[in-house]
Amino acid sequence: MSVEITRLKADQADFDKQLNAMLAWESVSDKQVNQIVDDVIEQVRARGDAALVEYTNRFDRMQATQMSELEVSQTRLLQALQSLPLDQRTALEAAAQRISAYHERQKSESWRYTEADGTVLGQQVTPMDRIGIYVPGGKAAYPSSVLMNALPAKVAGVQEIIMVVPTPDGVVNELVLAAAALAGVDRVFTLGGAQAVAALAYGTETVPRVDKIVGPGNIFVATAKRAVFGAVGIDMIAGPSEILVICDGQTDPDWIAMDLFSQAEHDEDAQSILISPDACYLDQVVASIEKLLPTMERSDIISASLKNRAMLIEVADIDEAVKLCNRIAPEHLELSVADPEALLPKIRHAGAIFMGRYTAESLGDYCAGPNHVLPTSGTARFSSPLGVYDFQKRSSVIMFSAEGASEMGKVASVLARGESLTAHARSAEYRIIKDN
Amino acid sequence: MSVEITRLKADQADFDKQLNAMLAWESVSDKQVNQIVDDVIEQVRARGDAALVEYTNRFDRMQATQMSELEVSQTRLLQALQSLPLDQRTALEAAAQRISAYHERQKSESWRYTEADGTVLGQQVTPMDRIGIYVPGGKAAYPSSVLMNALPAKVAGVQEIIMVVPTPDGVVNELVLAAAALAGVDRVFTLGGAQAVAALAYGTETVPRVDKIVGPGNIFVATAKRAVFGAVGIDMIAGPSEILVICDGQTDPDWIAMDLFSQAEHDEDAQSILISPDACYLDQVVASIEKLLPTMERSDIISASLKNRAMLIEVADIDEAVKLCNRIAPEHLELSVADPEALLPKIRHAGAIFMGRYTAESLGDYCAGPNHVLPTSGTARFSSPLGVYDFQKRSSVIMFSAEGASEMGKVASVLARGESLTAHARSAEYRIIKDN
Repeated sequence: MSVEITRLKADQADFDKQLNAMLAWESVSDKQVNQIVDDVIEQVRARGDAALVEYTNRFDRMQATQMSELEVSQTRLLQALQSLPLDQRTALEAAAQRISAYHERQKSESWRYTEADGTVLGQQVTPMDRIGIYVPGGKAAYPSSVLMNALPAKVAGVQEIIMVVPTPDGVVNELVLAAAALAGVDRVFTLGGAQAVAALAYGTETVPRVDKIVGPGNIFVATAKRAVFGAVGIDMIAGPSEILVICDGQTDPDWIAMDLFSQAEHDEDAQSILISPDACYLDQVVASIEKLLPTMERSDIISASLKNRAMLIEVADIDEAVKLCNRIAPEHLELSVADPEALLPKIRHAGAIFMGRYTAESLGDYCAGPNHVLPTSGTARFSSPLGVYDFQKRSSVIMFSAEGASEMGKVASVLARGESLTAHARSAEYRIIKDN
Repeated sequence: MSVEITRLKADQADFDKQLNAMLAWESVSDKQVNQIVDDVIEQVRARGDAALVEYTNRFDRMQATQMSELEVSQTRLLQALQSLPLDQRTALEAAAQRISAYHERQKSESWRYTEADGTVLGQQVTPMDRIGIYVPGGKAAYPSSVLMNALPAKVAGVQEIIMVVPTPDGVVNELVLAAAALAGVDRVFTLGGAQAVAALAYGTETVPRVDKIVGPGNIFVATAKRAVFGAVGIDMIAGPSEILVICDGQTDPDWIAMDLFSQAEHDEDAQSILISPDACYLDQVVASIEKLLPTMERSDIISASLKNRAMLIEVADIDEAVKLCNRIAPEHLELSVADPEALLPKIRHAGAIFMGRYTAESLGDYCAGPNHVLPTSGTARFSSPLGVYDFQKRSSVIMFSAEGASEMGKVASVLARGESLTAHARSAEYRIIKDN
């Protein structure tokens, strides 16, 4: 089976142009999407539950008459968990345990220090009160995503976790409900789309307002999250999934082909990139791809994704591969080389770094422990995996001693008057100790 | 001088309604603003420097012929610093030193741990490469803001800091340039509005693309930041400044009146709130306000702000004051009480907490050390002061031993097959050690 994959050499004349063209990705909310989302948000804010029921009946082809029909009880969640086949339940519990253990290490603690004059400075770290998790319905409904979004919030100490998941035509994903039970989600509503985001952001009679909304969704969900940003916190707006594999040419080419497939099978826009200094090895991986592709359940999606967005890039040496990686800032990076530790300090931008030939990226998707919600489309330049820190926030703590307030009052006075803010200056000056 | 200020009692029948009405704040970008911003961004992306020069000439009434005229040289920045009056320079340097010292404590370090089978998990923390700071021009141009935005990035280890500041009619703020020199800003462009945000987000021939944009601005800047979010990181979109003072009735009422003024003088939309269980004390503060207001340079702005948005709230006791505070989630909180330490653990939501009678909020604006860029409009429910953590990001680190990959491969295989992702499953299964 022949597969079309873009093959580049880093020293070819038009390399930069070709690379940029292949990397280009922009999720554009057109005017029509924006208009629909704005209308939905306005209606949910104005009419609450009534609007939620209407939109859900219309968009998800449901026949609800009131909001209570769109809530899933804890009993129902537990039932889903208890009905799981034993191997799935054991695996899900093992994953949950590892995810929690890893995220415990991410917890920030409050800190403070005292200066010579008795002034205390510090930062008080607290969890958010209540957060919302958006879980997509249909084919992209992953129980692992429920764990990855809910468990960091639990570890952070969030009191209440609200989950929304659309159930188009009433079709419920049992694994998703089971994962919600396992992760300790407090309430689940069968809502989706912009209406679910609006309900979480502003609250309705039934759906409580949350402090932050996390989780992936389609263009309507992404547009709605952007629109409510500020009223609530949101996580990054996710693009298609990507993997970048740097290989020294010594890993079984079948393994690498399958690692590339594991991104490509997500959807036609997913991106799989392999970089190697070994041209013959790239040929071997192509051979593995051609051999293995016909055996894959999702061969259509995989071949479309490989054709649309995959790249095999030949570089002069591993250093050039690392340089390219920092330019691409991939979501997932596999360092499939003999000595990955030597490369790690040089990696400046990547969502997650999978080191060594044994560390398949798919282990990270489920049960390695670190989060699988990662910055996509080059946003690893400025953002991080979802973590406990996304559900904690900080308050500055300042307690001046009388002496400290007096000394600093003089400094503040000069600067405030320089900015023509005299109330600021006088407020500080009141605390200056008068010499007798 | 009589001042109109809303006075409420927490036990009055319509308290919730009145409080919510007074707190309500929403920055709305109307369709016209959105359209202008979208056009500006599109033009800057398409035509780069040429569009920047055109917009700057049009909106800021400049006569530039090329981009180089819109860059401020390092020599010019140093000249501004060296021309400062000595007291201002000394004060600015003292502030910078304290801000840096405090923010050093915020630095996150990389961490890792090794499991029994040799598997290594951790997180690698790295600074962003290049960030952009938006500094407003005109009356709201504060040198302290330059320090507060630039120094945390410096401490984080950001390599390059780009600052944009509009200079309408060519008017330059010497203090702002001096602060840029002191903070180690690398390049300064005299650009403002949506065009400056677009240039930083996408880059032009002259302005380098940054990884994150921070700093406050008008509605065009806020709308542009929202639009480019995703292509770059942004900080919170700031609303008007607020202070909430909780006082036991024992602080000099003149001090508290001036503390309230120091927020009110920012602008007519700024919000000052005083909560006390002591009704007579509230009367005393009103008397102080009436006495002091005529002596203030910005009395017009202060009285408009007090009339529009201020509240004096009488509560049953300090516990009720704390409860109200957590509901309001103020940007600045003063605990002007005898034992502020006793209240601190009960404060769940606040940007910065100023403890004790000596700790005037205005000290925090300039030189206490903590950042003065704080979450406004109740966003302290889910966000934090600007900090070093805003300029660092994290990469998950995963290195499985052969044994670990084999064990976890079994778990991943079950879960991946549960999600019908067979490439994920097979990629993990390749790493399972075969029994002989």
